[in-house]
Amino acid sequence: MDNKYDIAIIGTGPAGLSAAINSKIRNKSIILFGIRDLSNKLVKAPKINNYLGFYDFTGQQLKDQFQKHIDYMNIDIVTEKINAVYAMGSYFTLMVNEKMYEAKSVIIATGMEHTKSLKGEEEFLGRGVGYCATCDAPLYRGKTVTIIGYNKEAEEEANYVAELTNKLYYVPMYEGNYSIKENIEIVKDKPVEIRGEDRVKDIVMKNKDIATDGVFILKDSVAPNQLVPGIEMQNGHIKVDIDMKTNIQGCFAAGDCVGKPYQYIKAAGQGQIAALNAVAYLDSLK
Amino acid sequence: MDNKYDIAIIGTGPAGLSAAINSKIRNKSIILFGIRDLSNKLVKAPKINNYLGFYDFTGQQLKDQFQKHIDYMNIDIVTEKINAVYAMGSYFTLMVNEKMYEAKSVIIATGMEHTKSLKGEEEFLGRGVGYCATCDAPLYRGKTVTIIGYNKEAEEEANYVAELTNKLYYVPMYEGNYSIKENIEIVKDKPVEIRGEDRVKDIVMKNKDIATDGVFILKDSVAPNQLVPGIEMQNGHIKVDIDMKTNIQGCFAAGDCVGKPYQYIKAAGQGQIAALNAVAYLDSLK
Ligand SMILES: Cc1cc2nc3c(=O)[nH]c(=O)nc-3n(C[C@H](O)[C@H](O)[C@H](O)COP(=O)(O)OP(=O)(O)OC[C@H]3O[C@@H](n4cnc5c(N)ncnc54)[C@H](O)[C@@H]3O)c2cc1C
Ligand SMILES: Cc1cc2nc3c(=O)[nH]c(=O)nc-3n(C[C@H](O)[C@H](O)[C@H](O)COP(=O)(O)OP(=O)(O)OC[C@H]3O[C@@H](n4cnc5c(N)ncnc54)[C@H](O)[C@@H]3O)c2cc1C
Repeated sequence: MDNKYDIAIIGTGPAGLSAAINSKIRNKSIILFGIRDLSNKLVKAPKINNYLGFYDFTGQQLKDQFQKHIDYMNIDIVTEKINAVYAMGSYFTLMVNEKMYEAKSVIIATGMEHTKSLKGEEEFLGRGVGYCATCDAPLYRGKTVTIIGYNKEAEEEANYVAELTNKLYYVPMYEGNYSIKENIEIVKDKPVEIRGEDRVKDIVMKNKDIATDGVFILKDSVAPNQLVPGIEMQNGHIKVDIDMKTNIQGCFAAGDCVGKPYQYIKAAGQGQIAALNAVAYLDSLK
Repeated sequence: MDNKYDIAIIGTGPAGLSAAINSKIRNKSIILFGIRDLSNKLVKAPKINNYLGFYDFTGQQLKDQFQKHIDYMNIDIVTEKINAVYAMGSYFTLMVNEKMYEAKSVIIATGMEHTKSLKGEEEFLGRGVGYCATCDAPLYRGKTVTIIGYNKEAEEEANYVAELTNKLYYVPMYEGNYSIKENIEIVKDKPVEIRGEDRVKDIVMKNKDIATDGVFILKDSVAPNQLVPGIEMQNGHIKVDIDMKTNIQGCFAAGDCVGKPYQYIKAAGQGQIAALNAVAYLDSLK
């Protein structure tokens, strides 16, 4: 394999970035997956006073500071969304649609998704409802698909899926300009319920119903146990010990995804702990 | 009592400072004990690259940044050394020599003392060897005492003790100018062993022996279980859970004193967790 790294880090919030700089300082080869804006929860913060050393900062300013730090350390972000992480025994396989990466250890720093699930979402999961539109798109060739997008990154997925489907509805759950293809129909409405029998038949919106064969819900992050099959959870979070170890050997986690409090410097501190313990794990393999 | 606070924080390293700003943001009345320089481990760092957001910083620069942050939040430091913390049931008593403070909860952020103990130190502890010179000074009225000082703060203790003793030797374990009284004899030598029978009789230095009735060893911090009687330890650190709770209700801990890795942002993250859980504890008392 070409893409074999010491440490793969998933997420570019404070947890993932702190993990990245601390892994890099220890001379490990790393790959960091995330988004260009680093974290939507960061850029949206109006005022931050509780990150020791920075006061009276906007989220945008703190984000710029973080970006300068990773630039200074020559750390690049691979702006791809990981769909699944498989523990293969002595290494991990990370899937981005058809693409594959391999790493000896993994740090999960994917944050926490706070939006409630839709009525019918869990019921029809795998029977028309999915979280990775690009993964499952081939199943919907020539059919009608609805994508509920919680962020701009969802637009790319919509554009790709629209190449295969007969009809694509895009329901943006955010404000802004939408860079999507002309053959996609934007629906500015509030999804209420997903209905069907064996499989999804339609989606009920506040103002109208849409007949659809599939519904993809694209949020900032998916549930960790969907991302990493077999990972142990506790009260909706990844279960970790004080060293940020999960139940899977070589797999660490940090930040919002491991529990409260949901805060930047707590996430950054845990990212550091995860990185240093991943380094110790790698050294123990020698 | 006049001095009754919601949260008493012991230590002004990154763990204690982060605890202080996060407690203050939550509108709790706090008292913060530490030193003017914040942390000797901070000001001495030549170059810091692993605190997310600050790169290519000296310890002094990071310290200045932390100072500006607490100034901005109107947080003062009480430059006193806590000798003991007693859990009284629903509150805590903190002792600074004869002075006393009371708080409903306590956050221990005292760092970690890495210097090895001297030969004989543990054997004669309480029988001529002590860690709080000002506390025990009255016992040495008219006698000969040796103070081994690991930092400038020890000089103040030496000056106070010298008012009572017949003879005081001061053994500085650091470089610099010593602001101590004329009747104190400075011994620039390396302590090797404390000897005695029932009680301390002398201290063996590399180049000479000094007959002495008492030896005080003044380091940056004392062992947590000496500071807080009854606190549960694990491998030389305070045992905490993922919420930074110790075994004593209302008592939290963060930073180097709870274990590895010994790092700034890990300490700051844990200080935040400790503060937010102390706040939750206080709210649960209502
Ligand atoms: C409006 C707002 C204001 C806030 N204000 C404050 C504040 O003042 N102080 C404070 O301490 N906290 C504040 N918070 C909380 C703070 O934002 C979070 O606790 C923090 O961002 C958590 O960091 P994290 O690194 O764990 O996750 P996030 O910052 O959520 O980052 C997770 C990252 O992982 C990426 N990701 C997820 N899944 C994948 C995948 N499968 N593949 C690739 N990348 C993926 C996401 O795109 C994201 O970039 C605020 C939050 C909000 C929403
Ligand atoms: C030379 C050097 C370079 C370093 N470089 C780095 C680096 O580049 N990156 C990194 O992440 N880490 C670095 N470290 C490690 C880092 O210094 C520590 O992990 C960090 O300071 C721990 O923070 P803390 O808040 O737990 O404790 P400390 O910073 O040790 O602070 C503890 C504070 O508590 C005070 N205190 C103790 N007992 C009492 C008492 N009874 N009453 C009142 N006050 C008390 C002390 O005076 C001190 O101010 C370095 C350390 C050294 C020595």
